[in-house]
Amino acid sequence: MAQTPYQQLEQEFRRLHAFQGATSVLRWDAAVMMPRGSADVRGEQLAVLESECHALLTSPKVSRLIERAQANAAQLEDWQLANLREMRRERDHAIATPLSLITRLAKATSLAEVRWLEAKQQDSFALFAPHLEEVVALTRDKAQVLSQALGLSPYDSLIDEFSPGFLSAGIDQLFRVVGRRLPNLIREAIELQASRPALPLVGKVGISKQRTLAVEVMRKIGFPFDRGRLDESDHASTEGVAGDVRVTTRFDLNDPFTGLMGVLHEVGQAMYDLGLPEPWRDQPVGRDRGMALEESQSLLLEMVIGRSRPFLAWLRPLLEKHYGAAGPEWEIENLYQTLIRVRRGAIRADADELTYPVHIMVRYELEQQILDGSLPVRDLPEAWKDGLSKRLGLRPANDAEGCLQDVHWAIGSFGYFPSYALGSFIAAQLYESIRNEIEGFDSEIAAGHFGGLFEWLRQNVHGVGARVSAQALIKNATGKELSATPWLRYAEAKYLEDVAP
Amino acid sequence: MAQTPYQQLEQEFRRLHAFQGATSVLRWDAAVMMPRGSADVRGEQLAVLESECHALLTSPKVSRLIERAQANAAQLEDWQLANLREMRRERDHAIATPLSLITRLAKATSLAEVRWLEAKQQDSFALFAPHLEEVVALTRDKAQVLSQALGLSPYDSLIDEFSPGFLSAGIDQLFRVVGRRLPNLIREAIELQASRPALPLVGKVGISKQRTLAVEVMRKIGFPFDRGRLDESDHASTEGVAGDVRVTTRFDLNDPFTGLMGVLHEVGQAMYDLGLPEPWRDQPVGRDRGMALEESQSLLLEMVIGRSRPFLAWLRPLLEKHYGAAGPEWEIENLYQTLIRVRRGAIRADADELTYPVHIMVRYELEQQILDGSLPVRDLPEAWKDGLSKRLGLRPANDAEGCLQDVHWAIGSFGYFPSYALGSFIAAQLYESIRNEIEGFDSEIAAGHFGGLFEWLRQNVHGVGARVSAQALIKNATGKELSATPWLRYAEAKYLEDVAP
Repeated sequence: MAQTPYQQLEQEFRRLHAFQGATSVLRWDAAVMMPRGSADVRGEQLAVLESECHALLTSPKVSRLIERAQANAAQLEDWQLANLREMRRERDHAIATPLSLITRLAKATSLAEVRWLEAKQQDSFALFAPHLEEVVALTRDKAQVLSQALGLSPYDSLIDEFSPGFLSAGIDQLFRVVGRRLPNLIREAIELQASRPALPLVGKVGISKQRTLAVEVMRKIGFPFDRGRLDESDHASTEGVAGDVRVTTRFDLNDPFTGLMGVLHEVGQAMYDLGLPEPWRDQPVGRDRGMALEESQSLLLEMVIGRSRPFLAWLRPLLEKHYGAAGPEWEIENLYQTLIRVRRGAIRADADELTYPVHIMVRYELEQQILDGSLPVRDLPEAWKDGLSKRLGLRPANDAEGCLQDVHWAIGSFGYFPSYALGSFIAAQLYESIRNEIEGFDSEIAAGHFGGLFEWLRQNVHGVGARVSAQALIKNATGKELSATPWLRYAEAKYLEDVAP
Repeated sequence: MAQTPYQQLEQEFRRLHAFQGATSVLRWDAAVMMPRGSADVRGEQLAVLESECHALLTSPKVSRLIERAQANAAQLEDWQLANLREMRRERDHAIATPLSLITRLAKATSLAEVRWLEAKQQDSFALFAPHLEEVVALTRDKAQVLSQALGLSPYDSLIDEFSPGFLSAGIDQLFRVVGRRLPNLIREAIELQASRPALPLVGKVGISKQRTLAVEVMRKIGFPFDRGRLDESDHASTEGVAGDVRVTTRFDLNDPFTGLMGVLHEVGQAMYDLGLPEPWRDQPVGRDRGMALEESQSLLLEMVIGRSRPFLAWLRPLLEKHYGAAGPEWEIENLYQTLIRVRRGAIRADADELTYPVHIMVRYELEQQILDGSLPVRDLPEAWKDGLSKRLGLRPANDAEGCLQDVHWAIGSFGYFPSYALGSFIAAQLYESIRNEIEGFDSEIAAGHFGGLFEWLRQNVHGVGARVSAQALIKNATGKELSATPWLRYAEAKYLEDVAP
């Protein structure tokens, strides 16, 4: 029997999915396995696969099929309709950005990334500035063409690439609410914590012990090692596809917890990928609902649950089993107080849960000004220092700890930063619902029963895939529109807790 | 400036090379890294990449460009002309075999492979027979269409897929010469060796020690670990591309040498890949000159050089360094006598250098009879036993040790077996020239100086790529057409050696 246009589209997107999955494994391989000298060979392979994806999405055939499937939309079921919508979305993004622009951006960013690293190591913004200028100019071009195609503002169309469904107007609103309360909240939390003991968790723990603990934690959480791996790389990451998820982390001999927390972060995202709707995994509607949602799953596991007393109560015997017995710094309450310690610092990646959004707000403001031209690139270093100083009361000592600390802009990821803070807010809102709906949630976690948690997440988040918008997903899952209130409630309860139990 | 048709072709084949390189790394990943449950996801990725390669080679665009480049061939240089010839060759193969046939073969062989393993484990040819029937029928179809396109006999066109340039008429001739002398040679060698001591090399050596020794040997041989890796997998293999070569082997706790010898085998091929002509690596002319040549490089290192007194003299201190001191069985002469021991056995993969060609001749004869229909599949088990019995004087006890021992036919690799024996003959002929041309070759090897050897190979074999035919490559390298005489000379000198030194 002849295939319908919609069925033919599924066929085409199955090919796309295979290319993307191959690409992801090759990226993982490059980070974890590849010999150092093979980067150019791999770069060529990745570029060819990427241009193949672009060619597929922009082919007249796919556009023709989309139109014809659209004309027969009445015969499609709910999931198929959503799939068609997502196909169109991917097609629109791809058609808007010509391959020549993608290629120029790829070249500019790969050079900029190298220069950025040198500039950071030498604390010399001047080395990086001309490359950032070029990346900004090309990103502006991209935002312009996307804007026309998507009917969004230029900056919103960049956000749309990472976290579809989120607009800067909504983010402004969330940041206003949080930003109003945050300076005092941070101050109060620091004051309160000063009165509570938190012995540092230091001491060397061998990498292989850390790895063994992490693997056991992953297993008990429910990570399926027959469809995924844990490896080590310079930067923690989650790659692969739903049926083959590759988590990486970095263990530090002198820091027994950062590696484990990094694993929790990645596993949160990995469990999302693993829980995507089974029958749709090779289709656009079967993918995750964007970076903000992915980040919410990471933060829910790493920050919200991973840094909670019930989780640490469960973790403690495993710590002793793998790291050996230790002194009072391993008491649950001390672990907890240490892992939630709030500190004003210049570095985003080291920031705690409370000061983290401040770092994001600074970047969110600056990247819009850079893109619309109101902030010339050469003025970025001072603007950065001013921004952090104003919002956090802390002035970075130099550019390496200021505007050179993150790779994102060098690689052209403008519009990406807000998803980190959105993830935090979403995680808190989901957490509120989870605690309301799963009876005895704390006891479940303290007993190492993660089944209820992931069943809830599978039903309300993971298994939804991209069937509805991020906003609708959150509303369906929690009964409310996304707002910053749950996060503020969560943060106040956790960081301004009245009585240390 | 507009690109010439030839330049556009290079562009297309660069894409093909990237797809093939990605495919190879994904195959390596599947063997070494991939979680067990991810095979279906990977299968889909590999199938899509393969069909993409086929689509590229069979596109009207590529054929049109080939014709136009051909019309302007006068403007092309030597390497470019050879490249165009190889492009045409790949195109002709691809166009001859329609995607539908490839897909049916892929399905039939992937099922047959599973059934073959069960049949082998249960020693039940009946389980495998119907699947082999189907693979044979489809392979006949393929041989037929290839035969018409290439102007070769059906069986020769199958050989051409693996070892272009070799024809069964030539192989018949080589096998006749070797086959005449071999039975007596084997008998004489066994008799002679019976009078010479060869204490078995037994004893447990930890896998990590075996790995460390293998890595040091590879390093000293010149394997560049910044452009390649060594890992472990169920079956030894060499994957990857010239700039990123992935060698795998299997170490056995109870056998301190088989893993190392397997590494030498793969490294021989890896060094070939690594030595391919630098500027042409992403083009057809920059590839290896087929399986027989690849095998010659493996055997030259594993069998000819690796099992020679000078090599073992060099290896011995490394053995002691990594495996620890041992008794008289580690004396160089004992190592040598043990590693070159000739034994009549039913299993090809365990065979020594002398009996190996016998196993190949049996398969070579049988696969032609199966393909032309003169031997019905159901009669294969007895024909196999008869064949080995007649040629080696040994009748396999059962089919698991008979016609079920090899995976090749299950996966449709008809025409592949001869390349093993051809590799052996080529290795011996190259070795003769190497010894003539490199002064003090034995002393060089005994001193661990492999530079001269690989320089010679790079100049005469590796760096030639696919610029000339395999036959021409051998003639240019050795001054003579390929013949079995050097192999017979080599075998007689090694195995009928008059005086134990």
